[in-house]
Amino acid sequence: MATGFQPKTLVNSERLWNDLMAIAEITLPEQPYTRRAFTPTFDQGRAWLKEKFLAAGFAVSQDAAGNLIGSIPGTTPGAGTIMLGSHSDTVPNGGRFDGVAGVIAALEIGRVLKEGGHELKHNLEVVDFLGEEPNVYGLSCVGSRGMTGYLSDESLSFTKPGGEKLGEAIKRAGGDPARIANSARSDVKAFFELHIEQGPILESENIQIGLVTAIVGIRRIEITFDGEADHSGTTPMHLRKDAGVALAETIVLIRKTAEDFAGRGKGHFVATVGVVEVSPNAINVVPQTARLIIDARSENVELMEHFLEEVTRIAATAAETYNVECAGPKILSDSVPSICNDKLRTLLRDCADNLGLSTRDLASGAGHDAAFISRIAPAAMVFVPCLRGKSHSPEEWAEPNALAAGANVIAEAIIRLDANESYFANG
Amino acid sequence: MATGFQPKTLVNSERLWNDLMAIAEITLPEQPYTRRAFTPTFDQGRAWLKEKFLAAGFAVSQDAAGNLIGSIPGTTPGAGTIMLGSHSDTVPNGGRFDGVAGVIAALEIGRVLKEGGHELKHNLEVVDFLGEEPNVYGLSCVGSRGMTGYLSDESLSFTKPGGEKLGEAIKRAGGDPARIANSARSDVKAFFELHIEQGPILESENIQIGLVTAIVGIRRIEITFDGEADHSGTTPMHLRKDAGVALAETIVLIRKTAEDFAGRGKGHFVATVGVVEVSPNAINVVPQTARLIIDARSENVELMEHFLEEVTRIAATAAETYNVECAGPKILSDSVPSICNDKLRTLLRDCADNLGLSTRDLASGAGHDAAFISRIAPAAMVFVPCLRGKSHSPEEWAEPNALAAGANVIAEAIIRLDANESYFANG
Repeated sequence: MATGFQPKTLVNSERLWNDLMAIAEITLPEQPYTRRAFTPTFDQGRAWLKEKFLAAGFAVSQDAAGNLIGSIPGTTPGAGTIMLGSHSDTVPNGGRFDGVAGVIAALEIGRVLKEGGHELKHNLEVVDFLGEEPNVYGLSCVGSRGMTGYLSDESLSFTKPGGEKLGEAIKRAGGDPARIANSARSDVKAFFELHIEQGPILESENIQIGLVTAIVGIRRIEITFDGEADHSGTTPMHLRKDAGVALAETIVLIRKTAEDFAGRGKGHFVATVGVVEVSPNAINVVPQTARLIIDARSENVELMEHFLEEVTRIAATAAETYNVECAGPKILSDSVPSICNDKLRTLLRDCADNLGLSTRDLASGAGHDAAFISRIAPAAMVFVPCLRGKSHSPEEWAEPNALAAGANVIAEAIIRLDANESYFANG
Repeated sequence: MATGFQPKTLVNSERLWNDLMAIAEITLPEQPYTRRAFTPTFDQGRAWLKEKFLAAGFAVSQDAAGNLIGSIPGTTPGAGTIMLGSHSDTVPNGGRFDGVAGVIAALEIGRVLKEGGHELKHNLEVVDFLGEEPNVYGLSCVGSRGMTGYLSDESLSFTKPGGEKLGEAIKRAGGDPARIANSARSDVKAFFELHIEQGPILESENIQIGLVTAIVGIRRIEITFDGEADHSGTTPMHLRKDAGVALAETIVLIRKTAEDFAGRGKGHFVATVGVVEVSPNAINVVPQTARLIIDARSENVELMEHFLEEVTRIAATAAETYNVECAGPKILSDSVPSICNDKLRTLLRDCADNLGLSTRDLASGAGHDAAFISRIAPAAMVFVPCLRGKSHSPEEWAEPNALAAGANVIAEAIIRLDANESYFANG
């Protein structure tokens, strides 16, 4: 970790940290840290945030998609909005930083501007986006999709086990699903999101500020092999149709291909086989069917297409080698990469330089609310280092100074942006 | 399949077949063909068998281990016993042949000898061994272990989910667990078991009679890899500790090694990875732990030892390659191969030749009651071809003529053996 570093104080580092630790205490007590969207614990967290927003002097509202918004009106009517924020929901057994660090940093930035009497020409909005993490309705980034016109009627009718529809849940969370379709924002002139890196790059290179170039597209690919469930004792090796070995060879070659693609210098590329199923999964039976799911992520659409071709070839060859059937890869889901705004990134780098903070560009391998906001406005993300790259677990950790540094960079960028309309040109 | 073949009629092929189809009807109606040991359905099957034994003129009894025995006393007191049989229990959703074909063939052989007025010097015993298949108490070959002194007090205290001990279950099935320890048989001079091959070799080579050289030893080996559950999007390929890829590479190399060993001409060798578990098995998480179980079978003890060395090396190399931990292979269970009696095998081959039946030697890749009986007496097994090698499924199939051919070979062997004491010398 970067240690011994002291940024020029814009935000109040201690207050930021104390707020972050305070909201962390709002968790399912038996399962820290859990504050899943649409649950009473999440509502408690939001009530706490609302109090903080009001205490900071923000006007508090919720939009149709259920996002919680703290606003400071700008001095120039019609100048538009500078927005910043992230999400306060967590995965089950998550950490204290993923998402909520960006909300608390945004709160602190707005608060410190307000306290300092620094009036902006633009409206400033501090947003807690609803339900960024996967939830029981089967959709992530609920609030940022809703704010940008990407929450379809079909999505709103997704149903959780037990019966409630996503639309109903958004209503329970304070939104107005009937209005979502017509409430995509057009006034946002810039968006900033602070987030922990959730990966090991900044820590391993001892860099203080990560400037996100793109948020990867994510493609999930399923491959299934069909063999025969023969007796493991009596079936000679050469007469087998073992779906499990075809699966295994495919996993090994996907790994090699992903390493190759990652090393080509064409941007972030990773591919993971996280889900594996073999049936009947019995000690004395040759595997009849085997299934795997690949999670492939890249900021480069061409690389992703090329990867799919390679996967198709690998699976077909493995099936042929082990005399089993393979229907070919099936794309379960797909999202295109989101490009972060170059001008905002340059601005952020200048601000970091000015604060004496080291920076590097990097792609985000995880999805974020900023990916959706980038469809309606110039968007930028600031990553801060986290311990051993760990995320989505109680081990998740970022240093107080690292978070304050990230918040300071964004605060300074907002001040410069507000003062100089030319930053928005050709955004 | 061998078709159009008619053996010299010793047994009544049609009666054998009809009996086999009749007992097949005694099954859990919703799950054909299921007649698991220690269940009411199994008891029904045994009641049916007992009626058949009595109708054939056999004296019927049960020994301490719960085996059902139909006896025809020999004419020479003290000449000893020629035993034949197999088991009438099935796996869940099993077939109509595995096990019970050997019991019905034994019934038919005894019946046809009795009908023909062919009195043997030796006692003849037709046995339905209790519980050969895996059962809820966690022990297979219950009856043949009990008859040979291999059913320990520890085994008798194995408990099924719910509470009943194996010893109590044996008592319910008509045995006397208190007497088992002291009832290992010493009077058996030869044992014959007819069984379907449960593999594809005889069918694929168009051979009518398989003469079993050995029943393989079975070793189950567990390998576990420990890596790290990193985020699948944010963790660069070269910083991963992916237990799933280590597992996959191990599976591929185990397959290659097994193919190599099988091709060395040192007897039957197979190895299967049938059980695979990856955790947390989530789309967006790099596998943290991965576990596999190998089922390795060989008639050659040296080959088995060599295989374990190879597996140890393969797992260690895979762990090193993918930067994960591996504690090394763990042997979950182990059984030594059982050698079938050479003299009896030669006798069976002579009988088959005499009946115009083609033969080949082969090892049994599956376990059988004969493996335990071989510890107290010369034992031999006759395999008959089965359709596509399928077993342990309702698809299991053997032709009526194929079964009759196998029964005829054993019947002729018994007649010759009974007449010529020299066959027993140096058994």
